[in-house]
Amino acid sequence: MASKPSIPKGTRDFSPAEVSKRQYIIQIIKSNFEKFGFQPIETPSFENSDTLMGKYGEEGDRLIFKILNSGDFFEKKLENDFFDLNSISIYVSIQKIFRDVTSYIFHYKIKGQSFLTFEDFEKLLVDKEVLAMIEYKIEEWTSRNVFKDRDFGIAFDKELTERKSYLLAEIVDFIRMTGLDFEQVRNEDFLQKSLFIADYNVIKKISNEFCNVLGQKKSISSFMTSYISEKALRYDLTVPFARYVVQNQSEIVFPFKRYQIQPVWRADKPQKGRFREFYQCDADVVGSKSLWQEVELVQLYDTVFTSLGLEGVTIKINNRKILSGIAEVIGASDKLIDFTVALDKLDKIGEDGVKKEMIEKGIPEEALVKVQPLFNFTGTFADKILQLSSLLAESEEGMKGVEELKFICDNVATLGLSTATLDLDVTLARGLNYYTGAIFEVAAPKTVSMGSIGGGGRYDDLTGIFGLKNMSGVGISFGLDRIYLVLEELQLFPETVAATSKALFINYGDAEALYASQAIQKLRKENIKVELYPDNVKVGKQFQYADKRLIPFAVIAGDQEIASNSYSLKNLVSGEQISVDFEGLKNALLA
Amino acid sequence: MASKPSIPKGTRDFSPAEVSKRQYIIQIIKSNFEKFGFQPIETPSFENSDTLMGKYGEEGDRLIFKILNSGDFFEKKLENDFFDLNSISIYVSIQKIFRDVTSYIFHYKIKGQSFLTFEDFEKLLVDKEVLAMIEYKIEEWTSRNVFKDRDFGIAFDKELTERKSYLLAEIVDFIRMTGLDFEQVRNEDFLQKSLFIADYNVIKKISNEFCNVLGQKKSISSFMTSYISEKALRYDLTVPFARYVVQNQSEIVFPFKRYQIQPVWRADKPQKGRFREFYQCDADVVGSKSLWQEVELVQLYDTVFTSLGLEGVTIKINNRKILSGIAEVIGASDKLIDFTVALDKLDKIGEDGVKKEMIEKGIPEEALVKVQPLFNFTGTFADKILQLSSLLAESEEGMKGVEELKFICDNVATLGLSTATLDLDVTLARGLNYYTGAIFEVAAPKTVSMGSIGGGGRYDDLTGIFGLKNMSGVGISFGLDRIYLVLEELQLFPETVAATSKALFINYGDAEALYASQAIQKLRKENIKVELYPDNVKVGKQFQYADKRLIPFAVIAGDQEIASNSYSLKNLVSGEQISVDFEGLKNALLA
Repeated sequence: MASKPSIPKGTRDFSPAEVSKRQYIIQIIKSNFEKFGFQPIETPSFENSDTLMGKYGEEGDRLIFKILNSGDFFEKKLENDFFDLNSISIYVSIQKIFRDVTSYIFHYKIKGQSFLTFEDFEKLLVDKEVLAMIEYKIEEWTSRNVFKDRDFGIAFDKELTERKSYLLAEIVDFIRMTGLDFEQVRNEDFLQKSLFIADYNVIKKISNEFCNVLGQKKSISSFMTSYISEKALRYDLTVPFARYVVQNQSEIVFPFKRYQIQPVWRADKPQKGRFREFYQCDADVVGSKSLWQEVELVQLYDTVFTSLGLEGVTIKINNRKILSGIAEVIGASDKLIDFTVALDKLDKIGEDGVKKEMIEKGIPEEALVKVQPLFNFTGTFADKILQLSSLLAESEEGMKGVEELKFICDNVATLGLSTATLDLDVTLARGLNYYTGAIFEVAAPKTVSMGSIGGGGRYDDLTGIFGLKNMSGVGISFGLDRIYLVLEELQLFPETVAATSKALFINYGDAEALYASQAIQKLRKENIKVELYPDNVKVGKQFQYADKRLIPFAVIAGDQEIASNSYSLKNLVSGEQISVDFEGLKNALLA
Repeated sequence: MASKPSIPKGTRDFSPAEVSKRQYIIQIIKSNFEKFGFQPIETPSFENSDTLMGKYGEEGDRLIFKILNSGDFFEKKLENDFFDLNSISIYVSIQKIFRDVTSYIFHYKIKGQSFLTFEDFEKLLVDKEVLAMIEYKIEEWTSRNVFKDRDFGIAFDKELTERKSYLLAEIVDFIRMTGLDFEQVRNEDFLQKSLFIADYNVIKKISNEFCNVLGQKKSISSFMTSYISEKALRYDLTVPFARYVVQNQSEIVFPFKRYQIQPVWRADKPQKGRFREFYQCDADVVGSKSLWQEVELVQLYDTVFTSLGLEGVTIKINNRKILSGIAEVIGASDKLIDFTVALDKLDKIGEDGVKKEMIEKGIPEEALVKVQPLFNFTGTFADKILQLSSLLAESEEGMKGVEELKFICDNVATLGLSTATLDLDVTLARGLNYYTGAIFEVAAPKTVSMGSIGGGGRYDDLTGIFGLKNMSGVGISFGLDRIYLVLEELQLFPETVAATSKALFINYGDAEALYASQAIQKLRKENIKVELYPDNVKVGKQFQYADKRLIPFAVIAGDQEIASNSYSLKNLVSGEQISVDFEGLKNALLA
């Protein structure tokens, strides 16, 4: 392959600098997860298709990467479900023998005659020479191992005479199958039509299936997929987690606080910031309805972003029950999404604009009067809770949501957050289909233009899809790729994040390299990252390497240094060079 | 789905304890890779198929997991390569209209008559009512958006009359296509045969392809795969690394020392210790032929296994050039594998047994005389080098191998290894097809029965497969799963490896939980892992949770403790309980 290699669209290679930065973020998330009592699990990259399919809606099913069954997946499936491929292979062989025999008859037995009746043909089939020809052909094909010990094959493993008479019968059958009269068809046409009829047996079943598919307006791809694929790549970490919990329920100590940091794959159309392979970093608790979990998850967000130096994030919180309450008040549950989408535009298009949009979407004007407070929904968290209490006073579910929010808000306020702000956002409606309680979303500091960098919520029936009922779960997720971009933009990555060596030992030849290697070995025992330039090439090239690799020091150890048991340590930033003994070298590099 | 969920065979879930242990190993490997100047890269989980296929031999190709193209992969391919699916869809529609019309004619126009000539049928096709019927049908199908703006569809987007006459012509054509005489066929038969002929157009091309495939004795699966899959899961880390180097050659500083710790996937038959998803941990240098790399890689193995507490591993080394030299001496390059396999059994079956096997394999007796020293190949590394020097004196390549081994051995000896032993093993022949210089393999301590726990070697043309010539590479790999099993068997995992909390705060209700949460928040800031039991349930249940989770301390903070601003700290191992203030609590948990 001479063309320049590439990677699939939507995927990425990560360079050393990128891996180091990503690992830096992951390490901080991971250590804080553990500090909060979460334990790591890992699940396989691919799951059985039936574990994943149907869990993410129709669109999700389409975006799941399916893995082809391995081995002779296609033959096996076709053989089991459609037809016997072995029979096809034998049939194709019989057909070929038939063609050879017919061609022989036309060319040698009835030279010049281009028409033949069926009776004439049948008579010829007992002609000695024709029989010899058939015998020869049978042997030829048998030797090719076409007629295996199955179905037709059984007959072919018997004596040649038996095989011969079997084949004769087959050929006569074959001719009858064409359903055409010999006299009506010209030689060539006849051959072609016979072949076609034989093909028919091979393909009829596929055709039937295809027509069924077309009739059902079902995609052939989706029909094929179920036949040739039984595994699929993980689409998120939540469904595999639910599957894990149900599968291992007897070993798990509940409430189970797990975290999971692994890649997921989605066949989405790639675009800026959207990839087909990306990491998810999830922490979830399953088996407890306690709202203290929500309090802790808010603290966890605050702690992680503070540890990353990313100050000023806003942790938005809402509650599914509040949204249900609002739906009750506006008297249109089916308009809830339209309502929140429009309300979210308050900053941009103003109260009148929002109301106009709501009315256009079919929300009655009188409903808008009832929820008037939401158009001027400002103040502290406590203020907002008060307003919601009066707004949702008549909705039992809505008031339950207010109560839950108040508990979380009060306790978070008492405990205090380091650098993040908790904000009640009634327009927050992510995961409306599965969240049943709290809904979270984290916004980056306003100085950066970036979508949400985290999100989560509570779902009362996490494991129900796998048959384990009444397992409430609550969790949050960190958006690694976006956090990376935000830290990059705000220049928040520490300079020391890259896994680069502290010093490069210059290579002056084998004797010097050995002297250097002895020092290197001792330095590494002190956990100092150092390396030897492997080749004895021009010194300039070696320094260039150190420079490009951002290695801050070079160690020069030639004849002189060896003689005095010392090292010349050159600071590659300042250019300063000092002579040191091993202790001096060690201390300088440890500093 | 009510049935208990499962995971695909050959894959694994990792529990918190397992993840922690695996991470412990990975962390030690990773930190030592970096200490030796290796930098991390990551490549996508799936590569373009042509990047992977053909790189691992025929067997490897078969074991690569292929990913189905997403979206309507099948239609798209078929449409482009076989036939126009749109035409099929239209054809099926025409066929259905035809059936409806025919059925209408038989039931309403020629009631009771079960035979019909073609001429009769053609006449009926201009009958006013029949035309109206056809018109109605065309409209019905047009409304279903079957006749899109393509091929036939163009006509159908025009005026209804045009469409109607087009359809009429199509139907007449359709009838003629059957090639059957109306008078000869009964109504039902006729319909069926017509349908069959129409099917034929749909499936002829697939059939042809299938027959081609059968003729070529090529597997249908492999034929299909190329049509429906363009991506495949990573099979190892070496080929993606070579691809990465070639693709990013302009940004890479050579020699490039990279490490990569990521999962790979193989559709191997799962068995004990062999999985379909497993991690590889590779360190490679590309772009330098310096043997100092080999010296460092031996040191790296020693350092990692020493850090893991796994003392007494044997790092076996050999050289491809030595093997070539031996092949020259025995005068049978094609028998080299047989030779090394037999020689490897020396311990088990003795010199006579080995020689017997070699002769059986066709190695000439006189050759065995020449390599007699190999049957008593003992002593120090230096002794072995001496013996090889005399044995391979006449082989230029063999002597080059001896020289390389001597360089590595001498320098490693001078530098010294901490706990591992370097041993020359001339039977070591792994990677014979690609290694060109050093060959490494690491054996676990003899007390454990386990295959190799690491391996590697030098390959002079690592990136040649992607068009970048003359890039020598040398690298080693750590077998994570096997190292795990060895550490487990020898009980070498530190007790503190699990990511469990240091203390559980007992939950006595919301007021107490808030008091506890305040302490928890402060302890976490000191990097102490602590957690609150989320629910106010029976204390016994909470202690049980701590017990099962192996949490060593419980913190009791009820009315009394709150009143005195203190905490009762209970050691769950000894049962001892003390009363402490926050400082006391912190110090006790830090200890």
